[in-house]
Amino acid sequence: MLIRTRIGVSLDGFVSTRDGRPAVLAMPGFDGGALYGFPEFQQTLGAVVMGRTTFEPALGAPRWPWGDLPVYVLTSHALPSGTPEHVVACTNGPADLVARLRAAKLDGDVHLVGGPLTIQAFLELGALDRLGLLLLPIVLGEGLPFAPHGTAPSAFELESEHRFPDGTLELVYSAAAG
Amino acid sequence: MLIRTRIGVSLDGFVSTRDGRPAVLAMPGFDGGALYGFPEFQQTLGAVVMGRTTFEPALGAPRWPWGDLPVYVLTSHALPSGTPEHVVACTNGPADLVARLRAAKLDGDVHLVGGPLTIQAFLELGALDRLGLLLLPIVLGEGLPFAPHGTAPSAFELESEHRFPDGTLELVYSAAAG
Repeated sequence: MLIRTRIGVSLDGFVSTRDGRPAVLAMPGFDGGALYGFPEFQQTLGAVVMGRTTFEPALGAPRWPWGDLPVYVLTSHALPSGTPEHVVACTNGPADLVARLRAAKLDGDVHLVGGPLTIQAFLELGALDRLGLLLLPIVLGEGLPFAPHGTAPSAFELESEHRFPDGTLELVYSAAAG
Repeated sequence: MLIRTRIGVSLDGFVSTRDGRPAVLAMPGFDGGALYGFPEFQQTLGAVVMGRTTFEPALGAPRWPWGDLPVYVLTSHALPSGTPEHVVACTNGPADLVARLRAAKLDGDVHLVGGPLTIQAFLELGALDRLGLLLLPIVLGEGLPFAPHGTAPSAFELESEHRFPDGTLELVYSAAAG
């Protein structure tokens, strides 16, 4: 089981547009994610993880994005009413969440959805096994930066790359040795 | 003749470190640029262009980086004494500079070195024929952002990609049609 991101990022390093929508939605001709292999990716998963800010919009969305996958939400307080039963509120911090994921005998990988602060917490714990990016061929100019202010410098190894027809690149990195 | 960038950028979108050094210098094991094909790239050039902030450190550097290539510097005032004779101060703005480059019958491409504000000016004029990035497998956390605040959103087409042994990717984009 690997904990991995797969987050759309613009050439200038933003994961969301100015109005808070995921950067991938800013791609000309965005078709719902099938182009970027999200359905196939989801089939490799045993769980998804995200911070509360990323989770809450899904509660009001017309379609639940994660099927019957267990959803772990990193939060400092209880989740709102209406939250489905298979959503787990994790209120003891990221290290405790990582320990729960490692112990859960999940049948597949863990998709760390975001947002940037949650990804950063996993990076700092050394718990992000794969940093996966969808590098979108767009410049956004502003939005939510991929790396929150104060992120420590770090180096990675490029594990794989894949080019989608529209020029988006899927890049998968692991933490560099040493 | 194409006007093109070839600028090192971190995964989080910074072209320089916090202390102002080019991002590529933050790569573990950086060897002076030979790894990334800078010498071969330079042989394809007919001129280099940069803003004054990028130019001035070169005046005090132990080695002049651009051989005998013509160097055009976008600046609002005269260049300091000690500036070599083949350096041209361009004080009439980026549009005038672009017209001069197009008229100069250069024997090769133009390397738009930077910085970000100068690149942005060329982008806004539709004068950047190729947006070339060296995508470095590092996160910097802070530094000079590739896209200055207020950059207009824009889309690109991926023209080519090349992987260097250390996982750095050379990505060349052109402006998307329409």
